[in-house]
Order: sequence, then structure tokens, then C-alpha cells
Amino acid sequence: MSQFSRRLGRIVAPRTVVHAHCDVPCGIYDPAGAALAAKTVSRMVELIGQIDAGSTAVADRQKFVRCVTVKEQHAEIVKHEVQVIWSDYFKPEHLTAYPDLHTKVWNVLKLASKNKQNIDAEAAAQLEAAVKEFSDIFWATKK
Amino acid sequence: MSQFSRRLGRIVAPRTVVHAHCDVPCGIYDPAGAALAAKTVSRMVELIGQIDAGSTAVADRQKFVRCVTVKEQHAEIVKHEVQVIWSDYFKPEHLTAYPDLHTKVWNVLKLASKNKQNIDAEAAAQLEAAVKEFSDIFWATKK
Amino acid sequence: MSQFSRRLGRIVAPRTVVHAHCDVPCGIYDPAGAALAAKTVSRMVELIGQIDAGSTAVADRQKFVRCVTVKEQHAEIVKHEVQVIWSDYFKPEHLTAYPDLHTKVWNVLKLASKNKQNIDAEAAAQLEAAVKEFSDIFWATKK
Amino acid sequence: MSQFSRRLGRIVAPRTVVHAHCDVPCGIYDPAGAALAAKTVSRMVELIGQIDAGSTAVADRQKFVRCVTVKEQHAEIVKHEVQVIWSDYFKPEHLTAYPDLHTKVWNVLKLASKNKQNIDAEAAAQLEAAVKEFSDIFWATKK
Amino acid sequence: MSQFSRRLGRIVAPRTVVHAHCDVPCGIYDPAGAALAAKTVSRMVELIGQIDAGSTAVADRQKFVRCVTVKEQHAEIVKHEVQVIWSDYFKPEHLTAYPDLHTKVWNVLKLASKNKQNIDAEAAAQLEAAVKEFSDIFWATKK
Amino acid sequence: MSQFSRRLGRIVAPRTVVHAHCDVPCGIYDPAGAALAAKTVSRMVELIGQIDAGSTAVADRQKFVRCVTVKEQHAEIVKHEVQVIWSDYFKPEHLTAYPDLHTKVWNVLKLASKNKQNIDAEAAAQLEAAVKEFSDIFWATKK
Repeated sequence: MSQFSRRLGRIVAPRTVVHAHCDVPCGIYDPAGAALAAKTVSRMVELIGQIDAGSTAVADRQKFVRCVTVKEQHAEIVKHEVQVIWSDYFKPEHLTAYPDLHTKVWNVLKLASKNKQNIDAEAAAQLEAAVKEFSDIFWATKK
Repeated sequence: MSQFSRRLGRIVAPRTVVHAHCDVPCGIYDPAGAALAAKTVSRMVELIGQIDAGSTAVADRQKFVRCVTVKEQHAEIVKHEVQVIWSDYFKPEHLTAYPDLHTKVWNVLKLASKNKQNIDAEAAAQLEAAVKEFSDIFWATKK
Repeated sequence: MSQFSRRLGRIVAPRTVVHAHCDVPCGIYDPAGAALAAKTVSRMVELIGQIDAGSTAVADRQKFVRCVTVKEQHAEIVKHEVQVIWSDYFKPEHLTAYPDLHTKVWNVLKLASKNKQNIDAEAAAQLEAAVKEFSDIFWATKK
Repeated sequence: MSQFSRRLGRIVAPRTVVHAHCDVPCGIYDPAGAALAAKTVSRMVELIGQIDAGSTAVADRQKFVRCVTVKEQHAEIVKHEVQVIWSDYFKPEHLTAYPDLHTKVWNVLKLASKNKQNIDAEAAAQLEAAVKEFSDIFWATKK
Repeated sequence: MSQFSRRLGRIVAPRTVVHAHCDVPCGIYDPAGAALAAKTVSRMVELIGQIDAGSTAVADRQKFVRCVTVKEQHAEIVKHEVQVIWSDYFKPEHLTAYPDLHTKVWNVLKLASKNKQNIDAEAAAQLEAAVKEFSDIFWATKK
Repeated sequence: MSQFSRRLGRIVAPRTVVHAHCDVPCGIYDPAGAALAAKTVSRMVELIGQIDAGSTAVADRQKFVRCVTVKEQHAEIVKHEVQVIWSDYFKPEHLTAYPDLHTKVWNVLKLASKNKQNIDAEAAAQLEAAVKEFSDIFWATKK
């Protein structure tokens, strides 16, 4: 088993659930899940790029199918995580300091959709950056 | 809306998925999800304890149903997260340093089952401790 | 089997999936699912209100558990449907005509959370109204 | 932990998936899953009957919530399993020998709904019998 | 991002849940979800036909994987929606007016399976027609 | 519709859930689900091997995507089923007779991961053998 396939194997392995939002009364929310999912989208684009496009070897074709599926799922995870924190954690008073919060959230979701539809390293990098920006706002409000 | 119900509301809100295991090639696994889930089990036991057992008020009865459901789901999350890291991350060479790894994992799963079946602060604390121990081993192997 | 339990039975029966968003190229999105889910939340609050709170009859207690679960699921459906249309259908040009779209969406999500946490006919009515308002905007942009 | 709660604990534990239908080319379908689920519905009705209806002890109330949930899920499993075999396994030629197959399937589904809505040992026994009858037809066609 | 990929993107976007069956006491069931899903199956067959079969471009190959997955899921949705209405909404008295209801339902399910297994515009059109026929019967009984 | 595609069609059809573990008090657990899933992994590897690797026919390419997906899902089922029985059924006293139980379970999970990552008849056969061995131990403890 190659290093490559072993690594991909881990990626497609069963995912476990964590919370983007508080589930203990002290209010623990965490955008780390969204960031990790965005990073995974980028990595999938990278891995797809390493597959010889013209190859008809079954191993290559299987990697392609698995990478596309993982990319799809993780772009969806980004959307879900960010939306949960936005609607459940953020309160009206946060909007004073971050008046464009709604627009930024919207942008993350749009970028996630774009990454589902394309295999595009630039779009993946933009998604990672947008999630980081959202994450920075989140943590700034926790200070 | 009371402070209590607002907090519980967050807890039952949609959960988002993160990975207990590596999904980028550099091998990122994280038992933080298991720890958070175990903590949630404890918190649910605590919240259930605060509900007046004899109360027939619908608000109290609803809280009870929701807390039991959350406890059930999070005990299950603990089982899943720990099992994934155990089977996907740990390698035979780790067993030399931690020969009782298998037994410890088994113990976590048994404790999670016990917490599903009971409303028992002691069992919840044991689950948190067992997950912490598993987590400590995990991080020790990452050094 | 009473008329009551037969009706509730239908409600808890398996749900089937439809799309809040376009899945054919002509761009079909539909907020009808969100409206139906909000209506169901209201109905559950109504049904819970009809159960004798002090009753210890198992039939009554079962109805309570089932109604709370259905309410929880449908409040979640409202959140998901509205968020999908908001992120996938609406485009920047729509914001000119509806500059408070983001705020309205946020409000729907907050109301859905409130309805999870409470058994409150007033909050349920507000949720229905907020979804209707979102729906009206949606259809206005389709003209 | 009592014998009772330990047993219930097992019941609510994570379920694993098997196939009611052939997933290897030699055509392996199996109604055993439907039968086991119907049996579980019966058992849940029995367990609910053993709980002191008027008890306000949290342990009793938790058992009630868990048993109702398990009953609901297993009635749903019955519906799904039977429907899959009916639509995927049975062929027009089987109808000659079993002209009332469609009616029998319909009856199973109706009984499963009835068991969701009620806590009724009689209805549960009827469901078990109906699934057995369906199962007998299935196996007769395999001879 | 091409018009094509944008449209496909919408199709694969997260689906939200609506009810094929009544979940308010006045008995609202709706086969619209089944019809939309059948239409989506047809559209996927059409989109797959537009992809250059011999192309090794990753964009083309990704579209293929996504379209096959969407087709699979929507054929499944058709099966589930139709089965729910059949078992939960229709009552024995409806069979007098529509004695071949069971046969028609069975036929829809068989056609959905055929569409999973093949990329066949004719089979997709038959599925749409069969669902429409089922839908017509449904609405006729509501008059 | 060819014999081949009809068979595959069944395989990808909706799966129904059964229990690897006891859900009636007399303690019924059954590793049959794990064995069937392992067999399915093998069969998928076989079916993939029968597809002309260089073919660009859409029918062939669709079969490939579906087989890879089914293989992925069933390798996951193996992991889940075995883990449930291991943690929920086996008790400390079983370890005396089977001191390497933990190691054997771990091995099954590792093999399942390997089968996700590869299209490898040898690895699939090993998985089937490892599940059989686990199953034999299970049944031996039931005597």
C-alpha cells in the first residue's frame, strides 16, 4: 500500500462528530471544524491534481472518485459549521463591531458551493481564507 | 426564555462534523471531540439532576426528554471517536509503549454504554477520566 | 386507535426529501418546505397543549415524547431549508432590493432555536410569520 | 446497574446495517432483519408495561423515553425492510403463486404505523405475525 | 465558473426535507417531492449525455461522478416518497376506485431501480410518467 | 438491462438495518452482518476487475463509480459491526479464553481500511477470513 493511498484512506475513513457550537452551558463554540474541513477541500484539490488525468488504471480512477466525494462532503461541512455558529452563537451586539458579519458568512457559503462545483486550487485557497476570517472574528468576540 | 433553556437549546442544536482522525496527509487526528462529548454527557446528567423529578410542568418534562436524548447521542459520539482513532491512527509500534491500549479503549466504550443506560454522575465522571487518559496516550505518541 | 393518535402517527412517519433549491437547470427553489415545517412546529405546540400535563397514562406520556421530538426535528428543518435558499439561490443583486435579507434570515434561525427550547405558541406563530416573510421575498425576486 | 437497564442499554446501542436484499450476485435477500425489528417492537411494549406508570423516578422516566424511541425506530425498520424486499426481490412471476402479496405488504406497513402510534401488545403481536407471513412467502419462493 | 457547473452545483447542494405525507392533522400529503426527484433523474441522464464520454479532463470526470451520485440519490427519493404515501395515506376504501394501485406503486419502484442501474433516457421518462400517474390518482382521491 | 447491471442495481439499493448486537433481553448479537459486508467488499473488487479498465463507455464508467461507493460503504459496515459486538457483547471473562481478542478486532478494522484504500482481491479475502475468525470466537462463547 502506497503512502498516497494510505493517506487518502484515512481521509475517507468514518468521520466523528464534534460541535461547532456550545453544548455545555459555559458556551463553547469552535470554528476549528470549519477550518479543518476547508483545509481538506484544498488537500483534495491538490490530490486530484496529482492523479494522471489520462490514466485508465483502476487505482487512479478509484482515487479520483474518492477525492471528489471527500471534497463534496467537506465543502458541505464548511457550510454547516459556519452557519451554525453564525445563527446560534452570534448575537445582535456582535454586529456593532462586525457590521459585515452577515456578508462574510454568505461569502463563505458561496465559496463552499464553488468548491463543490469545481476542482480549483484558487477557489479552495479563497475558502480557507474566508473561513479563517470568520474564525478570527469569532475568537475576537470571545476575548 | 430562561438562561437554562437557552443553554439547553444550544446543546440540542445541529451538530457539525469534525474529524477525530487525520484527513490531511500530515496526519492530523484529534481526540478533542471525544473529550467534549464526554463532558456533555456529564453536563446532561447534571442538568437532569436539576429538574424537579416530580414536576408535571411541560417545560420540565420537555427538558428531561431533550437531556436524555442529548446524553444518548453524546455517549455514542464518544464511542465512535475513540474507536476511529484507535483503529486508524494507532499502529503496532505504539503498543510497545502502551501495551494496555486495547484494554483502555474497551473500557471507554463500556463506560459510554453505562452512561447511556444510567443517569449517574459517578459514571459520567469515570467516562471523562477514561477519555482523558486515552487522549493523554494519543498526545504522548505525537511527541 | 383514536383520531388523535392516528394523526400524530402520520406526523412522526418517515419523511421524504424534497429540494428547497433548484435541482433542475431552470432554477427551481421552493421555500414551501420551510413553511410546512414551521406549521408543524406550531401544530406540535398545540398538540402538546392538549395533553393533560399531570397525566401519568402511558399513552399521554408517549404522545408527549413523540411531539417534542417532532417539534425538534421540524425546527431544525426550518433552519436548514432557509439557510440553503439564502446561500444558494440569493445573489448579490437581490440585496439591493432587500438590504435586510441577511437580518431576516438570521431572525428565522434564531426563532427556530427558540422553538426548540420552548413550548410556546407565540414563538411558533412568530416563526411561521418570519418564514412567510422570507418566502414572500423569495417569490418577489422570481417575478 | 440493574439487569434491566443493562439489557435496555444494549437495545439502544448503535445499530449496524445489514441487507434485506441481495448485495451479492447470487441474489441473497433476507427478511430476518424485519422479523428481528418486529420482535423488538413487541419487547419494547413489554418493557414499557413493566415501568410503573405513575413513577416520577428519573430512572423510570429515562427508560420510558428510551423505550418509546427504540419502538419508533424499529417499527420504521420493519417498514423499510419489507418494502425493499417487496420492490427489489419479488418479480411479476411470484404474483401468480401469491396474488395477495401486495395486500400483505401493505398490511405490514399499516401495522408498523399502528405500533408507532400506540403502546399495544396486541398490535405488536399482529406485526410479528404479519412479518412472519411475509417471510414465509419469501422463503417459499426461494425453494 | 460555467453555466453548466453552476447548475450542477445547485443540484448536488444539500437537500432539505419536506413531507410526502401529512404532518398536520388536516392530512396534507404531497407527491410533488417524488415528481421533482423523478425529473431530476431525467435531468441527470441528460447532463451525463452532454459530457464527452472519451474526455479525460478532470472537470468532465468530476461532473460524471457527481451526476451519477445525484441520479442514484434521487431514484432512491422517488422510491421512498411513493412508498410513504402508499402505506400511510391510502386506505382500503381507495382500492375500490383504484384496484391496481398496488401494482402501479410496485411499477414505480421497479422503474426507479432500473434508473439507478442504467443511464437511459427512455427509462427516466417512464419513471416520470409512472410517478405522474401515481400523483394523479393521489389528487383524484383528495377531491 | 443486463444481468450484470441488474445485480449491481440490487447491491446499491437501499440497505436496511439489523442489529449486530442484542436488542432483546435474551442477548441476541450476530456477526452475520459483518460477514455479509466483507463478502460484498470481495464481490465489488471482483466486479471492478470485470470492467474494461480502458473503456470510456458511460455504462462502464457508471458501474465503476457505483462499485467503488459500495465497496467503501461495506468496508465501513464491517468496521462498525465488529466494533459494536466487541464493545457491547464481549465481557472481561471472555478474555481469559481469547486473550488476543482485542488484537484480532484491531486487525479486522485495519483490513477494512486497507480495502477502502485499494482494489485488492487479496486484501478482500483477508478481510473475509478475519471476520470469519472473529465470528467463530463469538459463536464459541455462545455455546
